[in-house]
Amino acid sequence: MNKQSPNKEITNKAITKRSNDYSQWYNDLVLKGGLADYSAVRGCMVIRPYGFAIWEKMQSALDKMFKETGHENAYFPLFIPKSFLAREAAHVAGFAKECAVVTHYRLKTSDDGTKIEVDSEAKLEEELIVRPTSETIIWNSYKSWIRSYRDLPLLINQWANIVRWEMRTRLFLRTTEFLWQEGHTAHATRDEAMEEAVKMLNVYADFAEKWMAVPVIKGVKTANERFAGAEETFCIEALVQDGKAIQAGTSHFLGQNFAKAFDVVFTNKENQIDFVWATSWGVSTRLIGTLIMAHSDDAGLVLPPKLAPIQVVIIPIAKNEEQLKMIDEKAFSIKKELEAKGISVKYDNDDKQKPGWKFAEYEMKGIPVRIAIGARDLENNSVEVARRDTLTKTVASMSGLSQTVSNLLEEIQISIYNKALTFRNANISRVDSYDEFKKLLDEKGGFISAHWDGTTETELAIKEETKATIRCIPLDNPSEEGKCIYSGKPSKQRVLFARAY
Amino acid sequence: MNKQSPNKEITNKAITKRSNDYSQWYNDLVLKGGLADYSAVRGCMVIRPYGFAIWEKMQSALDKMFKETGHENAYFPLFIPKSFLAREAAHVAGFAKECAVVTHYRLKTSDDGTKIEVDSEAKLEEELIVRPTSETIIWNSYKSWIRSYRDLPLLINQWANIVRWEMRTRLFLRTTEFLWQEGHTAHATRDEAMEEAVKMLNVYADFAEKWMAVPVIKGVKTANERFAGAEETFCIEALVQDGKAIQAGTSHFLGQNFAKAFDVVFTNKENQIDFVWATSWGVSTRLIGTLIMAHSDDAGLVLPPKLAPIQVVIIPIAKNEEQLKMIDEKAFSIKKELEAKGISVKYDNDDKQKPGWKFAEYEMKGIPVRIAIGARDLENNSVEVARRDTLTKTVASMSGLSQTVSNLLEEIQISIYNKALTFRNANISRVDSYDEFKKLLDEKGGFISAHWDGTTETELAIKEETKATIRCIPLDNPSEEGKCIYSGKPSKQRVLFARAY
Repeated sequence: MNKQSPNKEITNKAITKRSNDYSQWYNDLVLKGGLADYSAVRGCMVIRPYGFAIWEKMQSALDKMFKETGHENAYFPLFIPKSFLAREAAHVAGFAKECAVVTHYRLKTSDDGTKIEVDSEAKLEEELIVRPTSETIIWNSYKSWIRSYRDLPLLINQWANIVRWEMRTRLFLRTTEFLWQEGHTAHATRDEAMEEAVKMLNVYADFAEKWMAVPVIKGVKTANERFAGAEETFCIEALVQDGKAIQAGTSHFLGQNFAKAFDVVFTNKENQIDFVWATSWGVSTRLIGTLIMAHSDDAGLVLPPKLAPIQVVIIPIAKNEEQLKMIDEKAFSIKKELEAKGISVKYDNDDKQKPGWKFAEYEMKGIPVRIAIGARDLENNSVEVARRDTLTKTVASMSGLSQTVSNLLEEIQISIYNKALTFRNANISRVDSYDEFKKLLDEKGGFISAHWDGTTETELAIKEETKATIRCIPLDNPSEEGKCIYSGKPSKQRVLFARAY
Repeated sequence: MNKQSPNKEITNKAITKRSNDYSQWYNDLVLKGGLADYSAVRGCMVIRPYGFAIWEKMQSALDKMFKETGHENAYFPLFIPKSFLAREAAHVAGFAKECAVVTHYRLKTSDDGTKIEVDSEAKLEEELIVRPTSETIIWNSYKSWIRSYRDLPLLINQWANIVRWEMRTRLFLRTTEFLWQEGHTAHATRDEAMEEAVKMLNVYADFAEKWMAVPVIKGVKTANERFAGAEETFCIEALVQDGKAIQAGTSHFLGQNFAKAFDVVFTNKENQIDFVWATSWGVSTRLIGTLIMAHSDDAGLVLPPKLAPIQVVIIPIAKNEEQLKMIDEKAFSIKKELEAKGISVKYDNDDKQKPGWKFAEYEMKGIPVRIAIGARDLENNSVEVARRDTLTKTVASMSGLSQTVSNLLEEIQISIYNKALTFRNANISRVDSYDEFKKLLDEKGGFISAHWDGTTETELAIKEETKATIRCIPLDNPSEEGKCIYSGKPSKQRVLFARAY
């Protein structure tokens, strides 16, 4: 490749600019990019084919990583008896306020024949909760599957839909129903369970960084931010362009809490009875929202090549049918050549739309590489190659084009990650006073590394006053003596605060 | 290969014999084979890893077939507003009696602090139905996606969980919650929609025959057996070993019914407004039940190689550790060689179980091919190869073993299909009197081809008296003048009756 054109600002008129209204920009991308749509059901979204194709790519990569680490998939019931949820006190306290409850199992025509109504005679003896997470229903099964240490570890994952009755929703990032995977593992020892929880956190971090090109901070949650029922919650935290954090995935060490709630015991190697140790871990369609917010720009989506449903789009620039015919021939051969390298390609020779319209459309859709071919390119044995991430164009020879494009896709994947990493690192600020903390939160945002006295009281007071939460205590945190920015009490280490989605 | 051992009856003591109790035999296979388990929720099952691995194989093959025929995946909400279901009269009449209804969205601690109860203040204004099928919620979205013939056809599929409150359930074959895919397509013309419905029926039939090795009859349902809201329901019908039929998949031509119910119109090429034409089609985890019932025997599951999670198991026959070490080396090299051909292999050198136990275990699990390797086999450069379907053993040379096994897997796939086809064809009986019909139903079962006068009245009377239903009117049915076996009225063709799951 040669002749790099200058980097210029390109915007799409259909899309609100980030600087004008970040939330509206995000919604524009999701809706106009064809990723998702609102539905008739409050807080529930429709994931449209283009958005679902991204989810399928995520699922496929994650599923492979889970299987490579010894996990198997299974499927447990959508419904959880109310009494199950109530068995683990912290668990029910955490989820009670957002449970969709099934109370009846039949509809009927009203007595006057005019409308359909719930049949009051078909009331369930015990209400069923639509799963907000599946620890309870799964551990109830584990009770009958686990007898001895020989049955352990039990390493199971489930791909499923989840319902949490959220009051404020946002497409992908927080919806009443969402899709996710939830791993639920059972172990003979505390150490093994803890090792599993950390292992899966690392799987999530690898996925976020290598596939999504989103750098994440690995950490542990404070007691207040822990999963309801966990003894320790590990998390990966990402930062997006408006300076807010997103919790992208969590992995929980559950101790023996659920084993005790469901009486799941086993005979260990020493022939003694003990409760089983547990983990659970999950990521959801929230990752799609994270992906969009992390990389996209005012021209539309920017997708990392490894998760882009279409990696390359080829567009003919023809003045007449004769030219189009010639370009078609070349384009189909390029498409075939690229596909042979495992690259997904769309050739758009629809003559109802002009090239300019197509350029804007595929920029909005975030296709990583665009190849344009005109009549003169055929003469010169060259094509125009445009990168979505930098919006730059170059001319490339048709000879060896598939290798050029393959290299370019790798380069884009790395480049997007590095850009996000630079941004993230530039937005971690060390702060030593509460005034500075509040000022920085409002003016810059990002992660704020500050001393905290370790109490839930202080954590909640800061949250109440600033809307910032402790995102995590980073796993690689150095010890450092200091004073809590809020209470002035002594602190042993800094923690990461941020406003978050 | 050489030296075929005689075919002998092998049974597994843990499994009830088909001849003793067919239903119990089926449950034994499902439960003891580790395919599924009962759950704490009435009518809902847990799909265990081995059963889920079969479903993943089915999903993968079907998904590829759907995409090759131009369909894309998407995801629509789990919940359907009650009023949506009510908009299509036949549709709600068909599903009202089996709807799980969400009425509340919050739990709370009771006033006396002793228990968790439904918060009566969190009552939904409009109840939500857990989807029993998704036509209504999907067509509500299609309304905003379709404007012109350029937006058509819309070819969308969804993989999802479904809830139908069934009174009598059976693992895989009829459960309150099940997993399925549902295709929902929108078309500009009646002909195109009808063509789609038939195309997808053919995809299902291909899948059943080529992957599941289950021969099916393609046909149309009578008006009485049609999907609620369809103008025509096409189906594939299988026959299992106790002579009962199983509806394995359906594809519906929905006419303009849902377009009218949700006011989905488009501008056609002639610039006129018209309602959109629709199809829907689905197969579910019921296919796993069909698969089990079609092929398995008194020794356990028989799985067709194309859907078997593990296609080959290798078992060492070692008298001591030294022998085991030598066999290990050879076995791992065979495993690698087989895997290079895309064959999934398990090498079970667990020394806590004896070979005899393992033989029975993997027979129960339906692994298509078993390779046993002893010390003498190493000397002879041979292995023992056993087929699960015929329970026969041969000795095969280690040279070229991967090709031998690869060929054998193909042979087994075909052989299982042919066996099922021979059985099915031997169990289609032509009958011309009602007495003979009843006698045959009780003594032999199977499909009964008989004349029917075309009225729902007769169909229901026969069902009431014999429990046999009209499974379908086969697509390749010849015209034939005759008299209805029940009413004696004139008939133009035979239809297929059977008792069914």
